[in-house]
Amino acid sequence: MSNGTVNRTDLRQSERFLSLYTPPKIAGEFTGKHIISVEQFDRHDLQILFDATLSIRRRMRQHDRGLLQLTAGRLMATLFYEASTRTDLSFQAAMRHLGGEVVAASNGVQFSSIYKGENLADTVRAVGCYADVIVLRHPNVGSSYEAAYYLDLLREQVIRQPLVISGGDGIGEHPTQALLDIFTIFDCKHRIDGLNITLVGDLRHGRTVHSLAKLIARYEAQDTTLNFVAPDELRMPENVLNYIREQGIAVNETDNLYDVLGETDVIYWTRVQEERFEDPDSYEAIKDRFIMTPAVLAQAKDDVILMHPLPRKHEMGTPADHDALDADPRTVYFKQMENGMFVRMALLAKVLGGLWV
Amino acid sequence: MSNGTVNRTDLRQSERFLSLYTPPKIAGEFTGKHIISVEQFDRHDLQILFDATLSIRRRMRQHDRGLLQLTAGRLMATLFYEASTRTDLSFQAAMRHLGGEVVAASNGVQFSSIYKGENLADTVRAVGCYADVIVLRHPNVGSSYEAAYYLDLLREQVIRQPLVISGGDGIGEHPTQALLDIFTIFDCKHRIDGLNITLVGDLRHGRTVHSLAKLIARYEAQDTTLNFVAPDELRMPENVLNYIREQGIAVNETDNLYDVLGETDVIYWTRVQEERFEDPDSYEAIKDRFIMTPAVLAQAKDDVILMHPLPRKHEMGTPADHDALDADPRTVYFKQMENGMFVRMALLAKVLGGLWV
Amino acid sequence: MSNGTVNRTDLRQSERFLSLYTPPKIAGEFTGKHIISVEQFDRHDLQILFDATLSIRRRMRQHDRGLLQLTAGRLMATLFYEASTRTDLSFQAAMRHLGGEVVAASNGVQFSSIYKGENLADTVRAVGCYADVIVLRHPNVGSSYEAAYYLDLLREQVIRQPLVISGGDGIGEHPTQALLDIFTIFDCKHRIDGLNITLVGDLRHGRTVHSLAKLIARYEAQDTTLNFVAPDELRMPENVLNYIREQGIAVNETDNLYDVLGETDVIYWTRVQEERFEDPDSYEAIKDRFIMTPAVLAQAKDDVILMHPLPRKHEMGTPADHDALDADPRTVYFKQMENGMFVRMALLAKVLGGLWV
Repeated sequence: MSNGTVNRTDLRQSERFLSLYTPPKIAGEFTGKHIISVEQFDRHDLQILFDATLSIRRRMRQHDRGLLQLTAGRLMATLFYEASTRTDLSFQAAMRHLGGEVVAASNGVQFSSIYKGENLADTVRAVGCYADVIVLRHPNVGSSYEAAYYLDLLREQVIRQPLVISGGDGIGEHPTQALLDIFTIFDCKHRIDGLNITLVGDLRHGRTVHSLAKLIARYEAQDTTLNFVAPDELRMPENVLNYIREQGIAVNETDNLYDVLGETDVIYWTRVQEERFEDPDSYEAIKDRFIMTPAVLAQAKDDVILMHPLPRKHEMGTPADHDALDADPRTVYFKQMENGMFVRMALLAKVLGGLWV
Repeated sequence: MSNGTVNRTDLRQSERFLSLYTPPKIAGEFTGKHIISVEQFDRHDLQILFDATLSIRRRMRQHDRGLLQLTAGRLMATLFYEASTRTDLSFQAAMRHLGGEVVAASNGVQFSSIYKGENLADTVRAVGCYADVIVLRHPNVGSSYEAAYYLDLLREQVIRQPLVISGGDGIGEHPTQALLDIFTIFDCKHRIDGLNITLVGDLRHGRTVHSLAKLIARYEAQDTTLNFVAPDELRMPENVLNYIREQGIAVNETDNLYDVLGETDVIYWTRVQEERFEDPDSYEAIKDRFIMTPAVLAQAKDDVILMHPLPRKHEMGTPADHDALDADPRTVYFKQMENGMFVRMALLAKVLGGLWV
Repeated sequence: MSNGTVNRTDLRQSERFLSLYTPPKIAGEFTGKHIISVEQFDRHDLQILFDATLSIRRRMRQHDRGLLQLTAGRLMATLFYEASTRTDLSFQAAMRHLGGEVVAASNGVQFSSIYKGENLADTVRAVGCYADVIVLRHPNVGSSYEAAYYLDLLREQVIRQPLVISGGDGIGEHPTQALLDIFTIFDCKHRIDGLNITLVGDLRHGRTVHSLAKLIARYEAQDTTLNFVAPDELRMPENVLNYIREQGIAVNETDNLYDVLGETDVIYWTRVQEERFEDPDSYEAIKDRFIMTPAVLAQAKDDVILMHPLPRKHEMGTPADHDALDADPRTVYFKQMENGMFVRMALLAKVLGGLWV
């Protein structure tokens, strides 16, 4: 039952909580809510979050010391069962900029109680005895649902309600990534409605693109078109496609970027990995079509924005290509990265603190 | 002499300091004292600590911002030579909730100066150059005594007195665990005197149960009975038994829980590990008697409390048993965990800050 | 191109930035400047830094709460690609004592984005999206130059200028170590001019002694003599010797400590490592002359100071020798260690905050 590694039994167990536990809808009120799925948000909730994020960014740039009161006296714990430096740092920075405190179990988890075979339910409650909010990163799908379930039980014993925010659960969801992505579109284009948005790369396995597409649907974007550009083997899964179509979003699938590039307002670029292909030749046949370079970007609109979740590798060409792309004002991936911190600040302030904005 | 791992010479050396260095008695005054042994405390000191802990918990629940002044401007370093996520997080959370600052060398130690062969005496003084208090976790018995010895020498060079608090030294002591355990008994039962307290499991090797038993003796509990329930191979060591009896505590040894369960006010459950037995059959013969389940707890008093130091595994049955036990209001192990933070807050505030409560 | 470890291509690439990027001279104004080389400082800059450090230390000893305002609301990230517990803790403690916030990627880096093959240029900009100042420790020479180069590019995208401070780049520079060393000389001797300073040990490979010697030259010390005591195989490199002589510093090379010990005001002791010698016999022949013991120190001046960058091993004899040396008031290595934190506080406050002292 315990053997020094995350065990398979435990893995299957986490998935059970996807049906056992229903995350609360935001419905206009963030305070005291776990954040574990994009499905908790609707258009109104997203608009509240966008406004809060814009307000926080403005105050940060004015060096407004009042920000340091927003989570003062509150403690966030990062509980990372797999390392993700940038997600970890982004959350930590967000909490600190709000005047809150942080304890980080960024790597320690794997060496310590996990090694001794403790299950997630107990570890998350142990940390919940100390912290007001736990950022959980875990390889098991459903782990953040399981954490939410047990933290709710803990409430009766410790006269407090510690919250969980998902920092990514395996191939499941990474809701704050999707939130920062949609916010960045809104930030650069001042709307989600009426846009032509193109997602490119491995759309089959990419957690990031699934969540972003769903969130655009949750926003009930009007007159928005989603283009999915992928090799045939790596098309967007049917269930995501259906989810989007049900919300009335126009969907367009192709394996050729140039079918849609000229009309695109937003390009979201991700990597196609060779190891996903059963036949190496089929990878060779398509790979060049999935490398973003200055020459490709030259064919896009003047006011397009190029997004990428980072880290990037050869799907954006050589280091020289990177440098050239970075110098193009239409690339916004570092702005997107910075927005991640602002979105997390808004979320933390709202779930911990209430009606401050 | 140095080979990239904690070496045996060094290990034996730490033990020397158990006789070389005598930790100061608290004797009513915590300020400026290292905390490395339960033997520093007497009944009066414990009562002061209980009162301070209750006060801190009350203020935490009232969100009293005044708490953030108690260690403001003071810096704690956690220096963990072996990982212990929950002890580490508990101390970090405690210091942060008091407004103090933390630097954590939670895992780094093993990769860095230790790797280069530096001894404990130098590392602890290096950290003492930056920090006001060091929480030391180290596999060597006596390591916290050695740290206290060298920090006292450092005082002359840096015009400050950095303190050490033990976070556990091998099979030696883990004083703050014992303090949170005895506080939890006091918290739930409002007294230590006159209780029937049952410690169950591997009483031979368990650092936790040794320290708790000794601390009950240090408290000079009146009309208190300690029941030690263990397989014959894993009985409480003679020296601990003698220590307790000398303080006039009634002691009762048995290998059958049901001899004492009906009269017990406090159950302290720990694990019996198969690998401690030379003969697998003798483990098989007794193991079922050392598994706590809802069926066992059903036979205990209505107002019993069930404690456990956590993490727990199969000594509390299946995951379903865990869930059922957690729902019983008589189980207090998560409360005990949370109390650990409050006790550490009280200790930190008192050794660093003086007469604030 | 990426294989889960720091790759050689990347390593060579960092070195290119030594010629591509010229760090800004301090020239009396620290605010907004990267700190990556001792060559940024001249005598006037060092004197400003000494004064600021003395002021900070005085205020720390008076428990002046005003210090907690100096970097309040600013965030430092430590980005350590190789572990160095004491440098990491020293910077973290410095920032905390100034009221600033810290996020630490002390070990995580190696497990996370690096593992995924991200290059330094992208990682440092990702962290720069969150932090005001990055302390970078990296095995590649030139890495801090590369970081400064890309952080300057980032400025246009995030409307902020995150700074980098080098925490050591391979066999290149470790500027804050050199700054704390020269400050400690000034602190103990109240001057750099007119001193007889002796550097002992492996002067060929020692980054520490190269930087300190250069910094004494940058100070344009008057009537100062530098003695370099090293085995013939481990002499100070020609380029460093030339650098120093050009500044008019008297230089004296020998392999015999006793040639200079009697006149020395400052001894800076470092280790000679056996593995640096091709012929074991030549190591055996000289090693005893490079062990500092109480008997050696007995032959030095009454007001000499003995410095060491720590950690120390057998180049300072047995543990008993360590204890005896520590008790001699002329040894200042722990004071030197503590000064490291004060110097880093002064630097952080000045580059982040401007004209506060």
